[in-house]
Amino acid sequence: MSEELAIGVDLGGTTVKAGIVTAGGNILQTKSVSTQAEHGPSAVIERIEKLISELLGEQHNEVAGIGIGSPGVVTLDGGMVKYPPNLPGWTEIPLGEVLARKFDLPVAVENDANAAAIAESRFGAGKGEPNFLFIIWGTGVGGGIIMDGKIYRGPSGGAGEIGHMTIDPDGPLCNCGNRGCVEAFVGQRYLSQRAIERIGEARQQEKILELVNGNLDRIEPAVLSAAAEAGDILAREILIEAGTKLGIAIASALNLLDFRLVIIGGGISAAPEFVYEAIRTSVRERVLTPLKPEARVIRATLGNMAGILGAAALILDPTVSPSGRVKT
Amino acid sequence: MSEELAIGVDLGGTTVKAGIVTAGGNILQTKSVSTQAEHGPSAVIERIEKLISELLGEQHNEVAGIGIGSPGVVTLDGGMVKYPPNLPGWTEIPLGEVLARKFDLPVAVENDANAAAIAESRFGAGKGEPNFLFIIWGTGVGGGIIMDGKIYRGPSGGAGEIGHMTIDPDGPLCNCGNRGCVEAFVGQRYLSQRAIERIGEARQQEKILELVNGNLDRIEPAVLSAAAEAGDILAREILIEAGTKLGIAIASALNLLDFRLVIIGGGISAAPEFVYEAIRTSVRERVLTPLKPEARVIRATLGNMAGILGAAALILDPTVSPSGRVKT
Repeated sequence: MSEELAIGVDLGGTTVKAGIVTAGGNILQTKSVSTQAEHGPSAVIERIEKLISELLGEQHNEVAGIGIGSPGVVTLDGGMVKYPPNLPGWTEIPLGEVLARKFDLPVAVENDANAAAIAESRFGAGKGEPNFLFIIWGTGVGGGIIMDGKIYRGPSGGAGEIGHMTIDPDGPLCNCGNRGCVEAFVGQRYLSQRAIERIGEARQQEKILELVNGNLDRIEPAVLSAAAEAGDILAREILIEAGTKLGIAIASALNLLDFRLVIIGGGISAAPEFVYEAIRTSVRERVLTPLKPEARVIRATLGNMAGILGAAALILDPTVSPSGRVKT
Repeated sequence: MSEELAIGVDLGGTTVKAGIVTAGGNILQTKSVSTQAEHGPSAVIERIEKLISELLGEQHNEVAGIGIGSPGVVTLDGGMVKYPPNLPGWTEIPLGEVLARKFDLPVAVENDANAAAIAESRFGAGKGEPNFLFIIWGTGVGGGIIMDGKIYRGPSGGAGEIGHMTIDPDGPLCNCGNRGCVEAFVGQRYLSQRAIERIGEARQQEKILELVNGNLDRIEPAVLSAAAEAGDILAREILIEAGTKLGIAIASALNLLDFRLVIIGGGISAAPEFVYEAIRTSVRERVLTPLKPEARVIRATLGNMAGILGAAALILDPTVSPSGRVKT
């Protein structure tokens, strides 16, 4: 008998990725389309359906169900997706029900950060670790909490928002309306902005400027990483400062949850090792004494496949207890 | 048949309190002794045993077991109490085993803040509330997390340390070694110190000075509360600032856990209502949008009986799932 299969869908603001995944976490095939979010929910759902159809067409009878990782808050009943950021026009969409009806298969829906946390827990850096905080460090700072081997969703599915922990009450204004969220210091947008300001002050930072051909608007964390690795001191400073600040929020979360392990994924997690050292130093300085020798901050290992794998795990792994599982 | 009874013991740094408690949360009788912690663990344990013996002597056959709320980290096996602050000489003491052997009764041990959280959950302000953050606002800032109706202990029993969430990375040094913990701003010691400094600068704050007969060392939060209620503007300012700062840490915790309810106990929780308004305003300003209309901050209702009641609940309520339950 062949291994059970599921389709995992990673719904993003710019791209929808999907794959056929085995119970052991192998991806047999992937496909992706641009989300074209600007055309509104119906158009996006059609594109998701087309993607799933194409994958199903080739392995139809062996697929046990469809898992979706979606931005926004996902409710426990019916796979309702609420107010996802970066998907204009989406208010409350019963994505789970819509797809279950269309394909006559079980569908499970989960928040995208939670799905990635589940993936790292089942197949990645968190395998065998019952408790960890997963952080997506990219455009924003998102997260997921794996507690006793399961995703911790919170009473309404919104748990894990480490990005909106305040690390400096008078800090910069965050997209969420609060001041001094860690995201407002280290999210991609803010971090790039901060680099631009400081380069504007310094101007002699030739390595960074060289990498972007003098165009400050093209500065982003990957450029900072490359510049730092090429010896640019300011880029290194900015990234170390970001790691230190991220560590402040991490330490608070570890103290509150009594956790020891943090796994960092997302675009900026590809940063050089010295950034991780900065995070670790900051965490060790700030966690309570019993946690100091045990606190660990490591890289996620699944990269941008985490979304597909975590979504598929919602179907393939009965211990996951996902939100919004719709049975047909 | 009469209601089941348990003995609840609240082990504190200065006083040991104990009571006989019914399954419905009524305290039939209480006794207390000074801890005399300076004499070391054996002497303290003898005093606890004497207190329990006296209570047992009068209701011996009806008592189902003994629950203890203790400072420090309490491990899941054997009711081991580890490094409790304010109990000199206590390294790792198997308090549960010692008392179970002595009295031939089931003994359950739990961290004192967790015990108080359990009490508020079963008998107090949190009755019927499956998820809330409990804060003990006193000498320090401690806490307990009630999650899905149960105490959330974390992997090693240390969860709920909201007092050691960083709210300002460059803030004052905390007792834990970190800078800018919320406890280092609003814990009794720090708060009193801050008031003394500011009164020293101002000097015309007659109401506060009147209440302590000019002796700045006698300034403590209760004095500030009394002065504020008598119209002292500086005392009011200091307390509002404290509430605002506590609100910063609360908002971070609510965002991380997706919680809506905070219950505040401990000595400073008797503060006037305007302090709660300051906390609420701060929390509302900083929590994520979905939580803004729903976040609530309320007073604990069990006062200094919470410790005894929560300790007894470890025995009386099978859903509590306490740490360190030792069966004989």
